Amino acid sequence: MWGGRFSEATDSFVAEFTASVGFDQRFANQDIAGSIAHATMLAKAGIITEAEKDQIVGGLTQIKQEIADGKFAWSVALEDVHMNVESRLTAIIGDVGKKLHTGRSRNDQVATDIRLYLRDQTDIILGLLKRLQTGLLDLASEHTDTIMPGFTHLQTAQPVSFGHHVMAWFEMLMRDSERLIDGRKRINQMPLGAAALAGTTYPIEREFTAELLGFEGICQNSLDAVSDRDFAIEFASSASLLMMHLSRMSEEIILWMSAQFGFVVVPDRFCTGSSIMPQKKNPDVPELVRGKAARVFGDMITLLTLMKNQPLAYNKDNQEDKEPLFDVVDTVTGSLLAFADMLPNLIPNKENMRAATMKGYATATDLADYLVRKGLAFRDAHEVVGKAVALGVQKGVDLSELSLDELQSFSDLIGEDVFEYLTLEGSLNARNHIGGTAPNQVKMAIERGRERIEQLGH
Amino acid sequence: MWGGRFSEATDSFVAEFTASVGFDQRFANQDIAGSIAHATMLAKAGIITEAEKDQIVGGLTQIKQEIADGKFAWSVALEDVHMNVESRLTAIIGDVGKKLHTGRSRNDQVATDIRLYLRDQTDIILGLLKRLQTGLLDLASEHTDTIMPGFTHLQTAQPVSFGHHVMAWFEMLMRDSERLIDGRKRINQMPLGAAALAGTTYPIEREFTAELLGFEGICQNSLDAVSDRDFAIEFASSASLLMMHLSRMSEEIILWMSAQFGFVVVPDRFCTGSSIMPQKKNPDVPELVRGKAARVFGDMITLLTLMKNQPLAYNKDNQEDKEPLFDVVDTVTGSLLAFADMLPNLIPNKENMRAATMKGYATATDLADYLVRKGLAFRDAHEVVGKAVALGVQKGVDLSELSLDELQSFSDLIGEDVFEYLTLEGSLNARNHIGGTAPNQVKMAIERGRERIEQLGH
Amino acid sequence: MWGGRFSEATDSFVAEFTASVGFDQRFANQDIAGSIAHATMLAKAGIITEAEKDQIVGGLTQIKQEIADGKFAWSVALEDVHMNVESRLTAIIGDVGKKLHTGRSRNDQVATDIRLYLRDQTDIILGLLKRLQTGLLDLASEHTDTIMPGFTHLQTAQPVSFGHHVMAWFEMLMRDSERLIDGRKRINQMPLGAAALAGTTYPIEREFTAELLGFEGICQNSLDAVSDRDFAIEFASSASLLMMHLSRMSEEIILWMSAQFGFVVVPDRFCTGSSIMPQKKNPDVPELVRGKAARVFGDMITLLTLMKNQPLAYNKDNQEDKEPLFDVVDTVTGSLLAFADMLPNLIPNKENMRAATMKGYATATDLADYLVRKGLAFRDAHEVVGKAVALGVQKGVDLSELSLDELQSFSDLIGEDVFEYLTLEGSLNARNHIGGTAPNQVKMAIERGRERIEQLGH
Amino acid sequence: MWGGRFSEATDSFVAEFTASVGFDQRFANQDIAGSIAHATMLAKAGIITEAEKDQIVGGLTQIKQEIADGKFAWSVALEDVHMNVESRLTAIIGDVGKKLHTGRSRNDQVATDIRLYLRDQTDIILGLLKRLQTGLLDLASEHTDTIMPGFTHLQTAQPVSFGHHVMAWFEMLMRDSERLIDGRKRINQMPLGAAALAGTTYPIEREFTAELLGFEGICQNSLDAVSDRDFAIEFASSASLLMMHLSRMSEEIILWMSAQFGFVVVPDRFCTGSSIMPQKKNPDVPELVRGKAARVFGDMITLLTLMKNQPLAYNKDNQEDKEPLFDVVDTVTGSLLAFADMLPNLIPNKENMRAATMKGYATATDLADYLVRKGLAFRDAHEVVGKAVALGVQKGVDLSELSLDELQSFSDLIGEDVFEYLTLEGSLNARNHIGGTAPNQVKMAIERGRERIEQLGH
Repeated sequence: MWGGRFSEATDSFVAEFTASVGFDQRFANQDIAGSIAHATMLAKAGIITEAEKDQIVGGLTQIKQEIADGKFAWSVALEDVHMNVESRLTAIIGDVGKKLHTGRSRNDQVATDIRLYLRDQTDIILGLLKRLQTGLLDLASEHTDTIMPGFTHLQTAQPVSFGHHVMAWFEMLMRDSERLIDGRKRINQMPLGAAALAGTTYPIEREFTAELLGFEGICQNSLDAVSDRDFAIEFASSASLLMMHLSRMSEEIILWMSAQFGFVVVPDRFCTGSSIMPQKKNPDVPELVRGKAARVFGDMITLLTLMKNQPLAYNKDNQEDKEPLFDVVDTVTGSLLAFADMLPNLIPNKENMRAATMKGYATATDLADYLVRKGLAFRDAHEVVGKAVALGVQKGVDLSELSLDELQSFSDLIGEDVFEYLTLEGSLNARNHIGGTAPNQVKMAIERGRERIEQLGH
Repeated sequence: MWGGRFSEATDSFVAEFTASVGFDQRFANQDIAGSIAHATMLAKAGIITEAEKDQIVGGLTQIKQEIADGKFAWSVALEDVHMNVESRLTAIIGDVGKKLHTGRSRNDQVATDIRLYLRDQTDIILGLLKRLQTGLLDLASEHTDTIMPGFTHLQTAQPVSFGHHVMAWFEMLMRDSERLIDGRKRINQMPLGAAALAGTTYPIEREFTAELLGFEGICQNSLDAVSDRDFAIEFASSASLLMMHLSRMSEEIILWMSAQFGFVVVPDRFCTGSSIMPQKKNPDVPELVRGKAARVFGDMITLLTLMKNQPLAYNKDNQEDKEPLFDVVDTVTGSLLAFADMLPNLIPNKENMRAATMKGYATATDLADYLVRKGLAFRDAHEVVGKAVALGVQKGVDLSELSLDELQSFSDLIGEDVFEYLTLEGSLNARNHIGGTAPNQVKMAIERGRERIEQLGH
Repeated sequence: MWGGRFSEATDSFVAEFTASVGFDQRFANQDIAGSIAHATMLAKAGIITEAEKDQIVGGLTQIKQEIADGKFAWSVALEDVHMNVESRLTAIIGDVGKKLHTGRSRNDQVATDIRLYLRDQTDIILGLLKRLQTGLLDLASEHTDTIMPGFTHLQTAQPVSFGHHVMAWFEMLMRDSERLIDGRKRINQMPLGAAALAGTTYPIEREFTAELLGFEGICQNSLDAVSDRDFAIEFASSASLLMMHLSRMSEEIILWMSAQFGFVVVPDRFCTGSSIMPQKKNPDVPELVRGKAARVFGDMITLLTLMKNQPLAYNKDNQEDKEPLFDVVDTVTGSLLAFADMLPNLIPNKENMRAATMKGYATATDLADYLVRKGLAFRDAHEVVGKAVALGVQKGVDLSELSLDELQSFSDLIGEDVFEYLTLEGSLNARNHIGGTAPNQVKMAIERGRERIEQLGH
Repeated sequence: MWGGRFSEATDSFVAEFTASVGFDQRFANQDIAGSIAHATMLAKAGIITEAEKDQIVGGLTQIKQEIADGKFAWSVALEDVHMNVESRLTAIIGDVGKKLHTGRSRNDQVATDIRLYLRDQTDIILGLLKRLQTGLLDLASEHTDTIMPGFTHLQTAQPVSFGHHVMAWFEMLMRDSERLIDGRKRINQMPLGAAALAGTTYPIEREFTAELLGFEGICQNSLDAVSDRDFAIEFASSASLLMMHLSRMSEEIILWMSAQFGFVVVPDRFCTGSSIMPQKKNPDVPELVRGKAARVFGDMITLLTLMKNQPLAYNKDNQEDKEPLFDVVDTVTGSLLAFADMLPNLIPNKENMRAATMKGYATATDLADYLVRKGLAFRDAHEVVGKAVALGVQKGVDLSELSLDELQSFSDLIGEDVFEYLTLEGSLNARNHIGGTAPNQVKMAIERGRERIEQLGH
């Protein structure tokens, strides 16, 4: 393959240590698709004949089938997916196969393969995101008036609806979709034609190849084309944000499934038990996803660090980009699949949620607002309510459980009507503007959500 | 401020440990701009009177001036920039100042401040990128036929032009600009109106406030609005890629400035010396930028990790988002400034570059192509050239320095005309397609580059 | 300072961009201590006279006082702490001051300063760890029979004591102390004498200087001495583990302070409130510490990445090691201080803890063990108890609240005596071996703990 | 296994998503060793009979052989290595097999397996380090007077010997060995006996099991024992430092193999070529190792992040610790193997090294020292030499190539004898103290190095 200037054979451990075929065979379909397009262009440009092109395309099609059938014999000695395919091609169609590599190099070929692969995976992930988001919209629409405590600092803050909370998750995922779509533009640029690093001496037609492969554009500089892995890092960054979101959701589901919260039931089929403790029903899926997020962060930092000090153009360090990237793809895909199945099946325990909302003085702000309406300055109202809460804490009761006498001991502005302002429904409905938790606002947000995921076009 | 329900004062170390005013005062201008818009909206919605609004705006304008003049007395006891400004406002205009906080909370206020700040910084960075890119286009346009070795694996690969190499840098930065512009859309959404977490009971008009502040949209869910820091992480990710690019450029400049390469001279004003070794002229700026890239990676991983396990909505952990973010902004801005000054002033040493291109068998591929044109199969041609190179290595000479006899000993297809194919100019001009290193292609790439940075609109 | 070979002055932005005095002045005391030792060695070796040494030491002592008094005029033009001090020295004592730099360079000088600084900080942190650990031992000793639920997967698992739980925290911190002590050996090696990179031509006596400065050994290779920052990375790694531990504790305290858990009360002086919601009492300190952990992780990855691709010996990238390192030190120190104050003052709510332990079928394993003792195979016993738990879940009661009839419907091996095995105390006391939760075991663990922290010798 | 309390079967995707047997089967030998020791202890403590123990040990021994022979049928339905082995054990020896799990749980079992595995791997890595270090000592001993330029800022600084440079690498690896040995103490503590989280009700004898398994101590707290993964993170941190070192060495080897440096030849068997460019001989191994370092950094950050927010005790997140850990082990082991083979075979090109040392004014400091000896103050000498260098740069010659007249034009203190001080040998020999580059010092450092690696005892 390249032995001419070498005086001894490669050390066998080195051959194995430097080979990539063990993992880059995952690109086989993309590699073959790229080669078919390249051969088609070579024929159009008159660099090979139509007949030669047909032979090459035929051979490649056969190889694709052999791989699909598990009959392809991968060889470590042939280093990578590219040489494995090319070598087999020549075995099938003879010396014509050697012409396929005209006007390209493995440097631009592998960059093309990764981009084609990542474009495909981006689309699969966008599909999974849409499926999960649709499930969330459905779940939210059933619970626009299911009241639960909204937390800040994990302390009870104000009443919200479960539907409103689910829609916060929806928003997170919406940004993930948008980011992946933005990044897809930068993935979908064709490096082919850069050859080893400087371009090629053959009269290639790069736009034609790009069109055949569905690329939106072509890389504008050959040195950059073979050395750029920005698109992979950007993908891993977007995936890290996505996994961070799934990790936050996981954290909440795990909390809610605890005996202390008791806010949701996760159907048994999504849980596992303990071989020792017979009572255990563990939220394995969200725990695992929470853990897997860390993994994607690690992969992302690997990819970024990998590139940091490389001079132009291609260096062997880049071979290390594949395994982290595959790990990102597998982790994100598996986690989204698990969540798309599980989340719409969460069963909120409305009684527990309501009882919890009654416990943490969730309507204290509403009492302050009541006093402001009666004419008190907000800062004074805040002070009054703070003292009433302190009494409640001391007695172990909620504000609405204090007597009118007790409440009036803090301010004589408080009247009999105060108790209606301390209801959860009153508090919920009062937050009635775009983005607020009032049930009709959440319903509208759900409707807009349905339109927005359609408009993404994925 | 919030003492009503508390039975003892805050521990003094805790007060200091939890205060943010030491760093978030950097948001003062954004905080005041947000407050002016908020007050204007409150008046429009009839929540405060026009007169009250005018008093508030007047007070805030005065505070802005006090801060600009360095006369504002920041207080740690007031925790953060928000309470410092509000407290001063009330001191200036009396109790009306307390009405400013109607219908909002520090949770949505700080999220708004960060976004306004980051939008401003994004625009500043985009301006610096454009300045640096313009400098690179000018530099490249002077060197479309300055020949240097193109490297892969840091081994001489094929001749390229210095202009072509500089244009690879341009392409990297182009993607940075595009990513920052994409991320800016997600920064430029308004959280105000989310209040603490659930929205507010006042009839606020969020779109109006958004319009006043130049936001493109409003956050659609109140829980998400106060807890989302995606935009900061995405910014830090884009900044990490940008710094990775500057680090790669730095690596090359440092190599090129070494006695061994001698490819470029960096003017003395961008270098420093040694207090011990009188001969030293060190490439401090690129070395420092290379180091600073690591710092931005660290900040990014901090921000991402910070958010990973947080349940909704706001948690105090988020206060830790500011210092890493400021560090990213300062590092990127300083590094771009330094590069925008320095890079256009790089002085390539054409003789050394040319001599180096003559040394590493850079035209070996051209010799193989020559043999292919004479009818040899590429794999055989590769073998022939490999052996010729091995002889060159042994004799310590380049291919073009071997005699015709010596060359013909490897293949009798080689004729007298071979030497013209081994010239650097021939090799360079032959790579004549979009993205290739041929001088006319690089010239066209420079022209397209000028248009592309204009089209970005920043 | 080094201008001889330069033809133009440093660009003013470059001067500021590359200066380190803004942050490395924190090393002033270490720098002066190192210089005093160096001068003392120079005199002993006859390189300077005793009188010169005395002048130098006098001048440095005066400078130290000026800095302590805030009267020292730091200059960016003088780049760093080293040149600032040396320049002032010469201003005070005249040309003799210039002799101080004989046989050393800023490269070995700064490496010495960092090591001295980090040795000091390690000792301070070890002291804080001991203080926190002692507080935990005291807290644990009061609660060896305070029963709470032990969790796995945040699901109730088995009863443990609060003291046992606190002792788990103690163990984590024990490892942190050990790691810091191990790392201290590698910090405490002296680079002085390596000069710029190759050693010096003067007859220096490195062991003598090392003895004066309390170093355990001297760096054995000059190139390594000036380029090594392992000790800083190792310190940051140990600090990351330490902060990870504090983050885990924080997570638990935050959970326990929620209305849902209600396991602990944190005194008001360690909490803050909300400017809007009068009822809020937020666990700011643990939330902030949880956030700050992310920051130390980021600093650590910065330091590691910084060094990754540097060829020997010193490169300017290394200047970027200081700010992350200072940030690690400040963050760890502040967090430990806050925890050492706060944790011993946690007030467990025994009633809530006990009630919670009664709720999640914590004694299910004990029931299975009971059945095993009655002759059932464990796997069968597990199945029986699993079904009893399912009935409990359905009825909303604990195992001990099922009637004997109900229990016997699952296995007729169950007798009247079963209820005593379902008590929490019985369950707790039964785990009676080293490391188990039985109160007498925890008491012994506390005693051993007191001895172990004494044996560390810090 | 744990189905009693469940009303539906596990979802098939969930079963696959949560299973670990695909990767944790790597622990099979450790798992079996741990089980044999556990069974032996159970018999000693009278919990099972000697006969039962013998059956169990017999069965496990058979299983070990089945696995070694590749005949063991792994089942995803059985989740992990533990249940696969236990299930097979019961199939072989009947119900007695079920007694093995008495007094333990998978939580303490898996923690034990990882520690046994990591202890083994630590020892293997220490062995590889020693082999590599020995190779470096041998290489260094051949080149204590092979002169090459020492660099700072990649600018020629002062002459050093190649042997001295290699010894800097030796020192880096020395610290790696020490750190791994320190960490090994913390790996080598036994969690067994912690059971699920709280200990067990059986009268186990933990010290006895620990002794059988070669543990140095036992984990002192059951909650900590099952949740602690510090040792894995510490291992990954030490591995990150180790890989950072290999990455730095790689960077240098890659530089030195470039046509510009030409300092070393790497034998062909450690390099690969290009399928396109016949002249290429690429330093694939160091490039790949440089890339692989990034991967270990990523794994380390994954492990650290994974643990950051977990409440006690075991959570499913921890299952994600294995794959990153295996990746660290494989990467470090492979990289050390490759380096241990390759580095001792580096062939320095003495002529090129010497010529390079002549080029960058490496003896400028020696000229300054010369002038100091003639009575000039160092700062003045520095200025004089700086100007002489400036002339050299302008004329393109080294200091020693300037005429005496030219030199004297800068200072009349310069005499004929100056040229002997400008020799490389003179410069090298003059740095004659511990850690300096003088050949006799390097020879002594090599001798001490040989003793030090023996004293490590690994």
